Amino acid sequence: MSKYLEDYIKNPMKIEERSFEIILSELGKHNFDEREIKIVQRVIHTTADFEYANLIEIHPKAIDILMDSLRNGNDIYADTKMVMAGTNKRILKEYNSKIYNLVHEESVFKIAKEKNITRSMAAIEIAAKDKNTSIYAIGNAPTAIYKLLELVKEKKANPSLVIGVPVGFVGAAESKEALKNSGIPYIIINGRKGGSPVAATIINAIMYQM
Amino acid sequence: MSKYLEDYIKNPMKIEERSFEIILSELGKHNFDEREIKIVQRVIHTTADFEYANLIEIHPKAIDILMDSLRNGNDIYADTKMVMAGTNKRILKEYNSKIYNLVHEESVFKIAKEKNITRSMAAIEIAAKDKNTSIYAIGNAPTAIYKLLELVKEKKANPSLVIGVPVGFVGAAESKEALKNSGIPYIIINGRKGGSPVAATIINAIMYQM
Repeated sequence: MSKYLEDYIKNPMKIEERSFEIILSELGKHNFDEREIKIVQRVIHTTADFEYANLIEIHPKAIDILMDSLRNGNDIYADTKMVMAGTNKRILKEYNSKIYNLVHEESVFKIAKEKNITRSMAAIEIAAKDKNTSIYAIGNAPTAIYKLLELVKEKKANPSLVIGVPVGFVGAAESKEALKNSGIPYIIINGRKGGSPVAATIINAIMYQM
Repeated sequence: MSKYLEDYIKNPMKIEERSFEIILSELGKHNFDEREIKIVQRVIHTTADFEYANLIEIHPKAIDILMDSLRNGNDIYADTKMVMAGTNKRILKEYNSKIYNLVHEESVFKIAKEKNITRSMAAIEIAAKDKNTSIYAIGNAPTAIYKLLELVKEKKANPSLVIGVPVGFVGAAESKEALKNSGIPYIIINGRKGGSPVAATIINAIMYQM
């Protein structure tokens, strides 16, 4: 075991602290404000990929909206179990909030088959009916973003914030562009990159500042 | 909604197929064999990051070992719930295998506190005692890899394969280097990159070839 690691091994918090120091130092000059940079450094911590600093775009009201929603006890719909698995449930519980996912529900399989749409889309239809769900965290399915935008147009959904960071080669970049132009407050990762752990990390990075 | 996406939206399998086409085409020439390239393209699909093609290293016996282990009904220990969330449980069930994680167990909290080690390390100690656990998938904690290597030296663990892909800035690269030099068959992502979704994706990419 390297001596360097040995110093940190007993204390995971120290590993995190040191990681953030390295990230800030290698990142160098940037234009993020005090709260935004905490999101950016945590996304880089999760991915070891500095390109995210150039790809992330945070709507000016996004951070306050997520904080206010949680303080109101509103819930977060996540498009994958992996987003759920990555979020800090202890903090969510403190605020009487929860994060949930529906793609494995019987009702979702049924609607997807009947309407010939993806399960991600069918799940969004159900989540949008829940009055307590105000935040959507989409890490995987561009179709979930498109469905949500469609429901908003039809006045069947009213998200206060969409964390739109699906990763992928078909439709991901386009879906994030569409979200950005929709008028709904957003946090996005431009282009192909993103993913469920990035979505979870963004939520955590904001919750840790509450 | 873009016309391009509309064509694919009704059929998630087509989205995946098209994504793999794009990945192979942009990747260009490579030296992976038929089975390895399916792992590589799936990792790129999960991360939208072509650098993984240069960072991944697959021990020549790794793929057969994972397949044989599952056929024997052996289990996989994952260092995070996120690795678990990302793996295809339907296939695991077919082989009477399971993937599990212990870091949130009471006993792990206790051991970690008593021995003043990370919970990831304490969890590895318990997993290593389970005779049916032959594969370790480490997506997050370098300390889990170091602990496992330590137990192997003490003849207290006998992993047949370690998928060692922790992401991070402190200890991650070093831990993967140590695994590579340990004599244990491995799949690693060299350097800082990796993560739980990468670990899950590697497992899935091999299972889909069984």
